[in-house]
This record gives sequence, structure tokens and C-alpha cells, in this order.
Amino acid sequence: MDTDAVSKAFVEHYYSTFDANRAGLAGLYQDQSMLTFEGQKIQGSQSIVAKLTSLPFQQCQHQITTVDCQPSGPAGGMLVFVSGNLQLQGEQHALKFSQMFHLMPTPQGSFYVLNDIFRLNYA
Amino acid sequence: MDTDAVSKAFVEHYYSTFDANRAGLAGLYQDQSMLTFEGQKIQGSQSIVAKLTSLPFQQCQHQITTVDCQPSGPAGGMLVFVSGNLQLQGEQHALKFSQMFHLMPTPQGSFYVLNDIFRLNYA
Repeated sequence: MDTDAVSKAFVEHYYSTFDANRAGLAGLYQDQSMLTFEGQKIQGSQSIVAKLTSLPFQQCQHQITTVDCQPSGPAGGMLVFVSGNLQLQGEQHALKFSQMFHLMPTPQGSFYVLNDIFRLNYA
Repeated sequence: MDTDAVSKAFVEHYYSTFDANRAGLAGLYQDQSMLTFEGQKIQGSQSIVAKLTSLPFQQCQHQITTVDCQPSGPAGGMLVFVSGNLQLQGEQHALKFSQMFHLMPTPQGSFYVLNDIFRLNYA
């Protein structure tokens, strides 16, 4: 498996979906998935998407600066570490963010997000 | 297992060792351990510590801003996501950094670092 290519494709898919239609991210999470968003812990696809769709901005645009990837062990998972800028509609300055995903393989040969940790860097 | 307490203790141990005696980090990594440092991929405890001890500064001090933690799956691992400031000796401004660790249990009941990804945020 070319983990760099898979992670790059995942990152492009994730953030373009986030910016266009956050509810469309539901399919990337499962019941055991965990999100820590600015320190707040949320579990399960439904609760995670409820959190993401209730964030206090309507439109946003992620611009990715770096994507790093490593295999996470014998279970076939993959760690993806992202840094970038988040531009909120109506705000003058973009916010810097860092985010990590732990992707796990599905029986269908795809991946789902088991772990997701997001932090703004307040630059 | 109280993953928050374990991750907090790990983070304190890791960065105090880094700032006092980088070579002392060798025991936290194993042969299969991976470090991605500013995009450069390095594998194995010996190579990782060679990289860390050859960084172009003698003295530094990490100041931790946030620590987030999640269990990484049935193998008993733990993901630790850190943000903070890195002050290099002789530099006026601290650098912001983000770093993630994937800790895996050892047969002795401790943890080692399987995955380590480090990025400066260039604030």
C-alpha cells in the first residue's frame, strides 16, 4: 500500500467535503470513532457530525500546508498528521490548525477514521 | 487505564529528557519506531536519537500548551497530540510546534513510541 498516496487522497477528500458539506463526513466515521476538538471529547459518527455541523461558522476553507503519514501497526492502520490554515467567512486572518487522523481499514478495502484530534494554533 | 494521566506523565518525561539529555530518549524508541521530523522519515531507535542529537542547536526548552489523548485501538496503544512552544538558546522568539506520538504497550507494562511526527508551525 502506498500510504503517502492514500493519505493525500484522504486529506483532499476530507477537507473538500468539510468545506462543501460537513454532513457528508458522516460516512468517514463509525460508532467507535473518537474526535477531540479543541479539548472536547466526542464519540460516534452521529455525535461527531453533530459537533462539526454546529460549529459557529457557515462557510470555511481549509488550505493544507503539510501532510505526514506513517503506518500505525500490524492492524493495517495509518496515521495522518496535517497542518494548515482555516479561513472562516468574514474573517480577515486565517487560523492555523493542526489535526491528526488514525485511519483503519474497513472489510470493504476502504478506510474509516478511528481517531481524530483537532487543535487551533492561535498564531 | 487512565490514558490522560499516562499521556501527561509521558509528555512531561519526554520533553524534560529532550531538554536535559536528548540521548536519554533512546529507551523510549524501538527498532520498528518511526519518526517524521519536518517531513524527513527516520526509522529505529538508534537513527532517531542520532537525528535528535544532531539538530543544529545545543540548548532548548519545550513549553507545552495542550496535550490530547485517545486510545488507538484493541492493541492497547495510545495517541498523544501535543502543541507548544520551543525556545532555542540565543533566539529571541519561541517557535510553535505540534507533535504526535503513538505509544504502544511493552510486555513489561510500560510504553514505547511506535510513531512520532513533529512539525514546526512557523507562527
